[in-house]
Amino acid sequence: MNFTNRITRLREKLAEQQLDAILISSSENRSYFSGFRGSAGYLWITPREAILATDFRYTEQAAFEAPDYEIVRITAGPSWLKNAASSSNIAQIGVEDHDLTLAGYNSIKEQLSDIPNKPKLIPTGFMCNQLRAVKDAKEIELLVQAINFADQAIETVSATLKPGVTEREISWDLEKTMRELGADGISFNTIVASGPNGAKAHHKPTDRRLEIGDGVVIDMGALYQGYCSDITRTFVIGKVSPEFRKIYDIVLSAQETAEATASAGMSGTDVDGLARQVIESAGYGNEFGHSLGHGIGIAVHELPGVGPNSANTIENGMVFSVEPGIYIEGWGGVRIEDLVLMENNRPRVLTKAHKRDLVVI
Amino acid sequence: MNFTNRITRLREKLAEQQLDAILISSSENRSYFSGFRGSAGYLWITPREAILATDFRYTEQAAFEAPDYEIVRITAGPSWLKNAASSSNIAQIGVEDHDLTLAGYNSIKEQLSDIPNKPKLIPTGFMCNQLRAVKDAKEIELLVQAINFADQAIETVSATLKPGVTEREISWDLEKTMRELGADGISFNTIVASGPNGAKAHHKPTDRRLEIGDGVVIDMGALYQGYCSDITRTFVIGKVSPEFRKIYDIVLSAQETAEATASAGMSGTDVDGLARQVIESAGYGNEFGHSLGHGIGIAVHELPGVGPNSANTIENGMVFSVEPGIYIEGWGGVRIEDLVLMENNRPRVLTKAHKRDLVVI
Repeated sequence: MNFTNRITRLREKLAEQQLDAILISSSENRSYFSGFRGSAGYLWITPREAILATDFRYTEQAAFEAPDYEIVRITAGPSWLKNAASSSNIAQIGVEDHDLTLAGYNSIKEQLSDIPNKPKLIPTGFMCNQLRAVKDAKEIELLVQAINFADQAIETVSATLKPGVTEREISWDLEKTMRELGADGISFNTIVASGPNGAKAHHKPTDRRLEIGDGVVIDMGALYQGYCSDITRTFVIGKVSPEFRKIYDIVLSAQETAEATASAGMSGTDVDGLARQVIESAGYGNEFGHSLGHGIGIAVHELPGVGPNSANTIENGMVFSVEPGIYIEGWGGVRIEDLVLMENNRPRVLTKAHKRDLVVI
Repeated sequence: MNFTNRITRLREKLAEQQLDAILISSSENRSYFSGFRGSAGYLWITPREAILATDFRYTEQAAFEAPDYEIVRITAGPSWLKNAASSSNIAQIGVEDHDLTLAGYNSIKEQLSDIPNKPKLIPTGFMCNQLRAVKDAKEIELLVQAINFADQAIETVSATLKPGVTEREISWDLEKTMRELGADGISFNTIVASGPNGAKAHHKPTDRRLEIGDGVVIDMGALYQGYCSDITRTFVIGKVSPEFRKIYDIVLSAQETAEATASAGMSGTDVDGLARQVIESAGYGNEFGHSLGHGIGIAVHELPGVGPNSANTIENGMVFSVEPGIYIEGWGGVRIEDLVLMENNRPRVLTKAHKRDLVVI
């Protein structure tokens, strides 16, 4: 990873926003701009300095993972932040208002209260997160590996689905398969939603056993070297009803339409609309109650947003999910999700697991 | 779980603090006071109302898991919060300043800005978290089950440690064993720190292979029905040096001293001091750079604090870790951790995994 380049791009943003420094508190941005993967710490970046402050538990790891940074150990003693901010050059300090807690903000204000230059704290919104939205070649390589683990696991485990198996057993089987293939972990809690549970978009696996005729929505992802994947497939056990087949085909058609017709330069709202329009025309607009997709990288949900109110422009190098769904309470649901990379102005579908063989066994 | 009782205790706190309502945003407190385990949503509690607001993904689950609450679906439309706060009875609203982000706080202020009664937002610090510190019988039962899964996994896997196995393999073996015993997951990322890596208190497992003479610090926990366990054991592969044995015995003696002499009514600082004094007397005070312990329950780290600056009083019904350690950069480390329940004024050690047979193979 080229952290020097990332720090340079961040410094350009600081100049643009007239910030003399930024205090990065979110774990994802800490990792993105420094390489440090510990669970606690701050980055302090000015036009000249790059400091990583962390506590006793992580100083050794930080020195190893973030060689571009000066490592400062946070102690109960004098505030490292007060020291860093006391330079006369520091008038405006950016803070991550979508990460920093109100108590954290108040504590920082307090630490800086008696500095003569009285620096101001400026909320930076998603400024740092925006810099993560376009992926570099190394990031795409890691994402593809994370995607492959999930693809292989879903292909392997879906072939074994049968009546009598519980949602929890399937979920564990998927996780175990990914880990044994080489994934570092899961990128979020695996969803296995069978029968009527399919209506719950974020269902938690239960001891419900599969029955003939059940739909099964599986939504899962792998974590690999700090990068996340995310895939959803819907299967039917043994015997598919005409209604299920019809809804499946609508969702698949919505997804394939978006994947075939999205292009760089569209807004997230435009891309969402490509799929939503197919579902709405089929009469299920009210049953598609979430966004079409989301960016993915260090976080499983990150920029760009791809939903009814997503003003972001979709650019080349962005990786995001395309995951339309239809959910009917008491009946069940269908969701199909791929990850795509916008490349040469067109989406390239990175997810390879099949989606044509809906029925298993 | 008796949610009615929990809501009643919270309402007593609201009255005490002259709050007319509280907006709970943290996932742990949301779960503790309602039973709802989804990843997004708010509780709004007043002397008469109990509302759970969540989005489309979770409304069905919320209705099922939190029958004591009125479920409100959060939409892009009019603010449910504005509606709830518009009653003329609402002058002061508590917010969780250690959870709510600065952006979240500003958004809430904005939503409430044109309400005629102009309610004030009051930071409540750890008020809600404090109510979780003393556990009820059902919680202790779940904690004991989570502890048993970790105990059994560490006993099973430690017996198989041998030269050539990697930290990552051991970590996965521990996790797999817990899951197959019935745990829902891990309560935090498993630490397996071998040889010099033992000096890093929060080491992440690597591909380093065990060698004869290595110390191996294993710190792990199970998640079971929303409750966490946490255990650390240190082993030596094959052959223990006199120095390692000496340091191990100091750490064990510090732990046993605290477990034998802590009592209800002491502060967290007092309990920490019981163990710290043993390590300091042995000349390793500077090498014990963290707190003795922490409360545990829905979160793996919660109240009470048990460290050099922990003013909380340790009460009967609290469950916390006792985990002294000595860390020497370049050499390695030793940490031994049990969970204890303060009961009848004395600690009852809940962790059962052995700690006398330091050497494996």
